[in-house]
Amino acid sequence: MEVTICDPQFFGLICAANPSINKSTMNITLDQAETAIKAAKEKAKQLNTLMNIAIVDSGTNLVAFAHMDEAWIGSIDISQKKARTARYFNMPTGEIGKLSQPGGPLYNIEHSNGGLISFPGGVLIKNSKGEIIGAIGVSGSTVENDHAVAQAGADAVK
Amino acid sequence: MEVTICDPQFFGLICAANPSINKSTMNITLDQAETAIKAAKEKAKQLNTLMNIAIVDSGTNLVAFAHMDEAWIGSIDISQKKARTARYFNMPTGEIGKLSQPGGPLYNIEHSNGGLISFPGGVLIKNSKGEIIGAIGVSGSTVENDHAVAQAGADAVK
Amino acid sequence: MEVTICDPQFFGLICAANPSINKSTMNITLDQAETAIKAAKEKAKQLNTLMNIAIVDSGTNLVAFAHMDEAWIGSIDISQKKARTARYFNMPTGEIGKLSQPGGPLYNIEHSNGGLISFPGGVLIKNSKGEIIGAIGVSGSTVENDHAVAQAGADAVK
Amino acid sequence: MEVTICDPQFFGLICAANPSINKSTMNITLDQAETAIKAAKEKAKQLNTLMNIAIVDSGTNLVAFAHMDEAWIGSIDISQKKARTARYFNMPTGEIGKLSQPGGPLYNIEHSNGGLISFPGGVLIKNSKGEIIGAIGVSGSTVENDHAVAQAGADAVK
Repeated sequence: MEVTICDPQFFGLICAANPSINKSTMNITLDQAETAIKAAKEKAKQLNTLMNIAIVDSGTNLVAFAHMDEAWIGSIDISQKKARTARYFNMPTGEIGKLSQPGGPLYNIEHSNGGLISFPGGVLIKNSKGEIIGAIGVSGSTVENDHAVAQAGADAVK
Repeated sequence: MEVTICDPQFFGLICAANPSINKSTMNITLDQAETAIKAAKEKAKQLNTLMNIAIVDSGTNLVAFAHMDEAWIGSIDISQKKARTARYFNMPTGEIGKLSQPGGPLYNIEHSNGGLISFPGGVLIKNSKGEIIGAIGVSGSTVENDHAVAQAGADAVK
Repeated sequence: MEVTICDPQFFGLICAANPSINKSTMNITLDQAETAIKAAKEKAKQLNTLMNIAIVDSGTNLVAFAHMDEAWIGSIDISQKKARTARYFNMPTGEIGKLSQPGGPLYNIEHSNGGLISFPGGVLIKNSKGEIIGAIGVSGSTVENDHAVAQAGADAVK
Repeated sequence: MEVTICDPQFFGLICAANPSINKSTMNITLDQAETAIKAAKEKAKQLNTLMNIAIVDSGTNLVAFAHMDEAWIGSIDISQKKARTARYFNMPTGEIGKLSQPGGPLYNIEHSNGGLISFPGGVLIKNSKGEIIGAIGVSGSTVENDHAVAQAGADAVK
């Protein structure tokens, strides 16, 4: 069994026990990032949505970005924060949000790192070996649509 | 029937189905902004309140501002953030707040864009063609009063 | 003789010896601020310029603001920083700039207070008793024009 | 003769005499932005450089971005600041730098707007009617190369 994300139920334990799952010495290339953006835009159009799409590398630095015409201006920043949040903790952003609720173990973690976004729409990008090479963040519609578009973008990178 | 904002009940769905409702290539003029501020101040006096009133253009840049004597100093920033928040997502600020509660789909979205304000008092401003040309944010009293004053300001612009 | 600003030649000495010249328990009213903006806009039109005009109170809080149509977007922030800089040190912004040059006594003071603007265009506003009640910052043209428009705004307040 | 930017030699004078040159009610589309990035990347390769390329709309919001593989990470931010700086003042970034030197009229203007970049590499983007629709910022090599790549990107948009 390959553990690909830190199970929120065992958050910290599994991650701590398997530091190798955080390994990422490879960075996404611009070609790969543009492939992800192209696939994400296609999915966005298929869902009849207007999205902002951001790709960061394994160091959380911005690699590529696209703001679809008339997409929400406020989502320019959110899409980038989603991509960074996914890579900061090596899990989909929605998993963080489950843990950051009032009474939860990571309550208000959003205050860190210049502001996290912890609802769905941020997804890791891996290469064909399963190594983390970056992340994609999508914002502009429902969180379900945001996540679906982000996943489509991530899946397009091999 | 013309849908002018994204109904929170169907958040994303209506927006997705009507991408044209996000269209905004025009900017509010200073004359229009000052008309909005004048109307907002009159409404504020009528409600016996002391308000801060901010107007931003469709790019969220500040166009005009007024701080009524002895109004809350902390609301200078809030009124500007409300105006920006309304334009960032093309809906009244209070609609965002309904979605950003604990357990809600946009929990802690307020951490984005240098800080959002997601309670009522921010309203879009449209021209006679229904195009978004900017937004108004009002802060200084109850959120009900803040919203009423913002709406009065927005309604004064044709 | 009434010392109205801290002579840069004796910067610190006169200010230190006459703390009373910094006294300002009075705040500009919105009416006064709007009078200053109206006069500044008239002067700006007379000079055929497009200005951003900001008024702060004696606590450096924003009281009123106007962005003339198509004026530089980058000057929205600069006009506010000029107004604050003038009040921070109770002198026209250009005086700070003389002291903040390489080798000068206040070299790179612009790094303080979230960013100062130390070239002309920021001027104190006083009431009829000579008490500081706020400041005006203007940005959008040459520094000479910026200063002239700011002075016209300040002079309109009695 | 149509004056398209504010000649630094007559800084303010020409701008004041031609307020219409600042007009910009249109925003660049994503298609146009991607055309600019493609042309900029080609020019960058031709010059044997590794660039970061950012496109903002007329409201200075990010529309598209590309980080060429192994380009300077520090230039991710600089390219975006160059694009914003060009639009903030409607002139190439290098013109600002001529005026912001020690002893110059705009000394330390870089402290405004969350940080400006005032050396070459930021250029306005206009449509076929000469209207400002956004700006491009490029960073990763010498300022001469940065400017050449930015210009190539801007020229590709009709």
